[in-house]
Amino acid sequence: MFAHNKRLQYSVHVSECNPALANLMLEQFGGPQGELAAAMRYFTQALAEDDPGRKDMLLDIATEELSHLEVIGSIVGMLNKGAKGQLAEAVDEEAELFRSLQGAGNSSHVTQVLYGGGPALTNSGGQLWTAGYIDSIGEPTADLRSNIAAEARAKIVYERLINVTADPGVKDALGFLMTREMSHQKSFEKALYAIEPNFPPGKNPGKPEFADLYANTSQGDGDMRGSWNSDDNFNFVSDREQLLAMDGGDGLATTKLSAKEKSTLKAMAKRTQSNPDLDPETGAELGMAGNGKPKPSKRPSPPSSSKRH
Amino acid sequence: MFAHNKRLQYSVHVSECNPALANLMLEQFGGPQGELAAAMRYFTQALAEDDPGRKDMLLDIATEELSHLEVIGSIVGMLNKGAKGQLAEAVDEEAELFRSLQGAGNSSHVTQVLYGGGPALTNSGGQLWTAGYIDSIGEPTADLRSNIAAEARAKIVYERLINVTADPGVKDALGFLMTREMSHQKSFEKALYAIEPNFPPGKNPGKPEFADLYANTSQGDGDMRGSWNSDDNFNFVSDREQLLAMDGGDGLATTKLSAKEKSTLKAMAKRTQSNPDLDPETGAELGMAGNGKPKPSKRPSPPSSSKRH
Amino acid sequence: MFAHNKRLQYSVHVSECNPALANLMLEQFGGPQGELAAAMRYFTQALAEDDPGRKDMLLDIATEELSHLEVIGSIVGMLNKGAKGQLAEAVDEEAELFRSLQGAGNSSHVTQVLYGGGPALTNSGGQLWTAGYIDSIGEPTADLRSNIAAEARAKIVYERLINVTADPGVKDALGFLMTREMSHQKSFEKALYAIEPNFPPGKNPGKPEFADLYANTSQGDGDMRGSWNSDDNFNFVSDREQLLAMDGGDGLATTKLSAKEKSTLKAMAKRTQSNPDLDPETGAELGMAGNGKPKPSKRPSPPSSSKRH
Amino acid sequence: MFAHNKRLQYSVHVSECNPALANLMLEQFGGPQGELAAAMRYFTQALAEDDPGRKDMLLDIATEELSHLEVIGSIVGMLNKGAKGQLAEAVDEEAELFRSLQGAGNSSHVTQVLYGGGPALTNSGGQLWTAGYIDSIGEPTADLRSNIAAEARAKIVYERLINVTADPGVKDALGFLMTREMSHQKSFEKALYAIEPNFPPGKNPGKPEFADLYANTSQGDGDMRGSWNSDDNFNFVSDREQLLAMDGGDGLATTKLSAKEKSTLKAMAKRTQSNPDLDPETGAELGMAGNGKPKPSKRPSPPSSSKRH
Amino acid sequence: MFAHNKRLQYSVHVSECNPALANLMLEQFGGPQGELAAAMRYFTQALAEDDPGRKDMLLDIATEELSHLEVIGSIVGMLNKGAKGQLAEAVDEEAELFRSLQGAGNSSHVTQVLYGGGPALTNSGGQLWTAGYIDSIGEPTADLRSNIAAEARAKIVYERLINVTADPGVKDALGFLMTREMSHQKSFEKALYAIEPNFPPGKNPGKPEFADLYANTSQGDGDMRGSWNSDDNFNFVSDREQLLAMDGGDGLATTKLSAKEKSTLKAMAKRTQSNPDLDPETGAELGMAGNGKPKPSKRPSPPSSSKRH
Amino acid sequence: MFAHNKRLQYSVHVSECNPALANLMLEQFGGPQGELAAAMRYFTQALAEDDPGRKDMLLDIATEELSHLEVIGSIVGMLNKGAKGQLAEAVDEEAELFRSLQGAGNSSHVTQVLYGGGPALTNSGGQLWTAGYIDSIGEPTADLRSNIAAEARAKIVYERLINVTADPGVKDALGFLMTREMSHQKSFEKALYAIEPNFPPGKNPGKPEFADLYANTSQGDGDMRGSWNSDDNFNFVSDREQLLAMDGGDGLATTKLSAKEKSTLKAMAKRTQSNPDLDPETGAELGMAGNGKPKPSKRPSPPSSSKRH
Repeated sequence: MFAHNKRLQYSVHVSECNPALANLMLEQFGGPQGELAAAMRYFTQALAEDDPGRKDMLLDIATEELSHLEVIGSIVGMLNKGAKGQLAEAVDEEAELFRSLQGAGNSSHVTQVLYGGGPALTNSGGQLWTAGYIDSIGEPTADLRSNIAAEARAKIVYERLINVTADPGVKDALGFLMTREMSHQKSFEKALYAIEPNFPPGKNPGKPEFADLYANTSQGDGDMRGSWNSDDNFNFVSDREQLLAMDGGDGLATTKLSAKEKSTLKAMAKRTQSNPDLDPETGAELGMAGNGKPKPSKRPSPPSSSKRH
Repeated sequence: MFAHNKRLQYSVHVSECNPALANLMLEQFGGPQGELAAAMRYFTQALAEDDPGRKDMLLDIATEELSHLEVIGSIVGMLNKGAKGQLAEAVDEEAELFRSLQGAGNSSHVTQVLYGGGPALTNSGGQLWTAGYIDSIGEPTADLRSNIAAEARAKIVYERLINVTADPGVKDALGFLMTREMSHQKSFEKALYAIEPNFPPGKNPGKPEFADLYANTSQGDGDMRGSWNSDDNFNFVSDREQLLAMDGGDGLATTKLSAKEKSTLKAMAKRTQSNPDLDPETGAELGMAGNGKPKPSKRPSPPSSSKRH
Repeated sequence: MFAHNKRLQYSVHVSECNPALANLMLEQFGGPQGELAAAMRYFTQALAEDDPGRKDMLLDIATEELSHLEVIGSIVGMLNKGAKGQLAEAVDEEAELFRSLQGAGNSSHVTQVLYGGGPALTNSGGQLWTAGYIDSIGEPTADLRSNIAAEARAKIVYERLINVTADPGVKDALGFLMTREMSHQKSFEKALYAIEPNFPPGKNPGKPEFADLYANTSQGDGDMRGSWNSDDNFNFVSDREQLLAMDGGDGLATTKLSAKEKSTLKAMAKRTQSNPDLDPETGAELGMAGNGKPKPSKRPSPPSSSKRH
Repeated sequence: MFAHNKRLQYSVHVSECNPALANLMLEQFGGPQGELAAAMRYFTQALAEDDPGRKDMLLDIATEELSHLEVIGSIVGMLNKGAKGQLAEAVDEEAELFRSLQGAGNSSHVTQVLYGGGPALTNSGGQLWTAGYIDSIGEPTADLRSNIAAEARAKIVYERLINVTADPGVKDALGFLMTREMSHQKSFEKALYAIEPNFPPGKNPGKPEFADLYANTSQGDGDMRGSWNSDDNFNFVSDREQLLAMDGGDGLATTKLSAKEKSTLKAMAKRTQSNPDLDPETGAELGMAGNGKPKPSKRPSPPSSSKRH
Repeated sequence: MFAHNKRLQYSVHVSECNPALANLMLEQFGGPQGELAAAMRYFTQALAEDDPGRKDMLLDIATEELSHLEVIGSIVGMLNKGAKGQLAEAVDEEAELFRSLQGAGNSSHVTQVLYGGGPALTNSGGQLWTAGYIDSIGEPTADLRSNIAAEARAKIVYERLINVTADPGVKDALGFLMTREMSHQKSFEKALYAIEPNFPPGKNPGKPEFADLYANTSQGDGDMRGSWNSDDNFNFVSDREQLLAMDGGDGLATTKLSAKEKSTLKAMAKRTQSNPDLDPETGAELGMAGNGKPKPSKRPSPPSSSKRH
Repeated sequence: MFAHNKRLQYSVHVSECNPALANLMLEQFGGPQGELAAAMRYFTQALAEDDPGRKDMLLDIATEELSHLEVIGSIVGMLNKGAKGQLAEAVDEEAELFRSLQGAGNSSHVTQVLYGGGPALTNSGGQLWTAGYIDSIGEPTADLRSNIAAEARAKIVYERLINVTADPGVKDALGFLMTREMSHQKSFEKALYAIEPNFPPGKNPGKPEFADLYANTSQGDGDMRGSWNSDDNFNFVSDREQLLAMDGGDGLATTKLSAKEKSTLKAMAKRTQSNPDLDPETGAELGMAGNGKPKPSKRPSPPSSSKRH
């Protein structure tokens, strides 16, 4: 069960209202690398987890991410606070309010008009948050790697936001949030490696003949070798013929069909064949030159008026 | 530039048509862990990459994932081949076709009716593919971790599909595709660790006082200690007061406001206050008991007919 | 700041695993009327709220909804627990696992294969949760009405789930969750009516001449009168001419154009005119009858083989 | 059946083209509180409605909302009319057109380039309209409350648009549209309260012991009492122990498992345990310091060139 | 302005309730080829159209499509009518209702539980309708082709639905709707060819040297020649070298950089290089074998209890 | 199987970095008319296609579209190259970086902050790519028409991008891409007309009595006649009575119900009737005037402090 205390995990003291900056901050509120995505990624994993250690850790971190959602949402709220009142009370002239919306910076008109300046579950461009951002699949050696990656991405987005924020209070809180992602990444790394073995993920060992193959499918000037495709680590194959039908078969897709399926497919094929022996006139050719014949004037009334019905 | 050869990277020989199995296979065609997501994740990274080694590797693997998209899509096409003809030519009675659609298994009616049995860019439940599945952010120490995690997830989904597939030809091709994900994971691991250092991701070192903190935010029976939150590795904090306002401040969110912003906000607050000193009657209370008074019968005609206009 | 206790707000004791029922339960986990939508609706409002009473109430209820998300997610986890192990460990034959996936009921194959049986942020049909479900707009007389409506809808969906659930433990927990929605609705009603006046919402009083008009735009057999369109309460207008251009104007859409805009538009109009004086042959007509002429046999080789390149 | 008259329900006379203002107006064309959402909310309800009075009212209002969609869409079309011709005919220099796109205000480049200046079913930020905006669930005491709330929200968004619009013709038409939302809200209120009783929504009365409970889950400085949580109206509970496991049980989630389910889960648990007794080295630690050993120089050629393949 | 008459454009007389068939019918209510998509495609074009003939035609057909939306939605409502009452009044036992939901066919549980059996703006698989289905771009020679194609697709989906529908009343109404799509296609064809010329679409004639080129990018067994790539109609190029850098240039992507941009990029490249001269140990290798050292037993208490905090 | 060569199909030489222009270019990378949508439209058709000629053509063009995706993505990458380094290395002051993000033009902040300047699978407004853009349905006479229309739309969007691009290198590459769309359209036209007959699409001939009907559903000033609704080509019906219930029936929607269904529906109707004979007080009326009575002062402490809990 969750409980809440009205004090934040980190104080937010904003120097002045700035709706354009508020909009940028939405990236970590309702964006793909943001705090709701983080909280829900770990929370959904925790609910399905049977391992007591991981379950506890996932709940700890999910709960903290909710507190971070509150911090970043409070930053948005503070940066928008002045503009919110101006628009709701409409004490200024319309043209001035319009200019302030447009001049406030990219997209802030959306959050002002639609959300009244409140923090919205969108990214900084207005894209609605979607559960497609969450990649939990219920297997710990995969999910922990997803979590490690998610924390790394979130760290980078915070770093970028810090790089463009001049307000010291906002910058300070962003620094806290960014650092916590680093700490979470470390916990997830520990939990992953405490599963032995954890590679390959899952239970099925795969087909050994393809496990160390490196397929050099992009060729031409720019080919490089390194540990990721070196002969020490991989069977490096450049010959494209070798890469075709690697099962040694015909490289075709086939299926067995019943007699009825066969005859139906044959009927369909016949009905819908694009006949290679024809050179038909097409709509494009019709469209290239005027083909319309003037309409026979069945009606005695002058064309211009007869068209009006 | 891309080129294509009509032979597949792995032969697909399906034993019999099976639209329900076809639908499951869509998970790796147009699902979040599927081959289009993989190909586009690496391809978008490659286009923005300046490091020649990584660029080459990303193009190699992106290109191979497109070939995998072709293999899994061909499996779908073969499994649906018979049903496609039956529906298009409609040689059976409607009721029989309806039963075959419904009996074919979950959701196969969608792909039959809407996509005519062709492989659709949806997951196995019909959810349209979205670029929200792609988490490239243009920083290699984050993106390579995302790629490692993505390959791990894809490996697991293939393993699950193998576990429920009895058709030997489909199972064989799935085994190939699964194994290749393991190989790709290894390449991405090598490329990540060939960046020194790669942790923390990015350039900003963070605030040291929060980097090793573990916040025990979920408490109660079930708390566990392990390397992910051990005293050896973390500063483990359970005291909730300590976790509030960790900057040592007031834990509030504030912003500086101009005089005009202040007065406008005050006007808005006054206009929209929920007054705690009142105990108003509400819509719910109105709704709990009949409050409607019979309408004054202005019209002499009997009510039942007078309502018809 | 949020804190968490590992005990649930309401105990969940499931009688037996049932993946098909688990899937239905997702409706209130990741569906539009579900607990995440509720929690986020109130939480985003709370962050932007300046009125202390409403802010406190919104935080109280948002926090409780998170606890409800945990309860309903735990129900999903328990109902799927057995199936999760079966698929991951794959101790059964493929065909049997396939049958159990398909037989388990509608769509449970998606959550099994994709999410490994964990609770997913989708509705019961697999549709990904989207922030489009959240309708907070930052004005209390509108938002509180939205909250009242949202609680009413959630109450109904729980009622429907209860009606189809035979498992007594699940039914009991659903009954608790349903009742809490009723309680929340009452709080939101009180808070709305504690704003005086709260109708019309917002500050702008509107154009009085249109405020009590009822437009009888759907006519024919089935027209009815009641308090919602009665002469006592409304100015009921059935005459369609009266409903056209209610400003008393021409009912047209016009704009002033600069000379340059005018001339450019004229050029565009001329270039793209669909000429009413022509009766052109079209692609459809071409398509109705064979029009393809056999291709001149430039190549001496027989057509069937010459087509292969 | 629908019929259409080419005159608008309200005349639209725009003073001058203004693509940035056009974009703002899209909020009520293809945004969540816009006219398509309104029309479809009521229309889908009407089709499923068996009560003759409500069915008639829903059809009346749905039809009027379609006419409003036409009015707001015509505003967009008029505001974009000049820009549309300029871009299509390209009589200006590229750099000038580029500047006009960028300078025209936020996001208008999207509607210009992608939609050619026509009204698009997006909100003012370009987010595609989605049926997730529609919350009809087929129960009148819930749906009518949803409709009341939707009208309230739409009224507010129109008010905000009016506040930022200086063009008198646009302002006038927006005022009409806003006022009609107020009138619709009144009709929906009447229809709701003409159902007796209408609270609680639906048929199931809920569990009385939880119906008047107020859970004070957010505590700390800022707690407030008012009619929404007063002792007169609610059983106000602050003690967190009391809020845990309110059924009086253990607060756990459990399920009964068959012997086979148990043994499979045990096998999975063992395979995937994060062992708390280990302190493993992790990828993050590898990444903190250089760990790469120089590759053994198997090839005599100098490294820099040998890497080129 | 729109008006409505309560009689349908085509009578709907359903033989018996059938929720599974209702769900299939949603494909043309809220699916991509459905009537809402059709109505909105033409309506958005009409609003931006300046050509009087096309504007009139688009309004005629858009209005008719709304009437079709009503017909298909009424079919859904009738097919679900019985199930709706059963679920709302819950006169049956839960287990029986559960079975009827599951047995009713794929996905009907979603529409029952979430939408109460009303017609939902989803496709037959529950995917929410999105404005991404609408491809209007505001250029008539493109939009009319889009409309022609959309009518062709809608015709096919109706044909498929007819093929699986045994209910004579439903089949009859579907036949009407299907036929109307054919008629609309003919109108759009006429309007397209009444623009002279209409190919290529738009104003810019393109680069002549690439206009008749056919790039044989997919090779291998299965290459075919026909009018779509014949020497008569195209310059057929198979040589892959010829297809690279068709401008005759270097085939590279380059940009000019300022000195500052250059130095910053150099710094970034250095910081993030994947060094090809190293063969680092990776996380995958750590994960392949146990690497965790037992934790030093700082605490004397037995491990099992010491882990509980 | 796909192969890749690192040289582009067309060289990209950008004159200077320009993030705002980069963002516009995204329209054809991840937008609805962009190259990914094109490639996937043809590729999914190819996989399901049995006709050898069409399959070959679809693979040829799909493969070329992937190469175009690479070209347009490389343009984006080059235009963003300088900005990417500036943000990642953060050598400038925050305020300056913020201004450059905002000044760079609409929405470029999103791609900078979220994607690090890499090409993202979004349109130029940040909308995530969705498979809803792809309209393949597996019937060649429909799919080829869809392809013809898609090429026409893509041609127009390229034309618009060319019209606003002053950079000669970008303009040149765009011209190539645009021209290729024209060429593809011609191939699709040939393949369509090589199917004889191809109209009406599919197999079912429709109901002849409705095939040539033109329904004049939009009336009033502005009605026009042309070949698309002429008496020569259509049976033009303006009489609205004639357009109602065109089957000659009652225009109603009905279904047969079992006795149990009937009684349940009756119970539901009674429970949820909006009674037309009542004129109830509503929430709106409560909200219009103050109705709250002061709360009884149970507590002796002064109200202002007693509210704090």
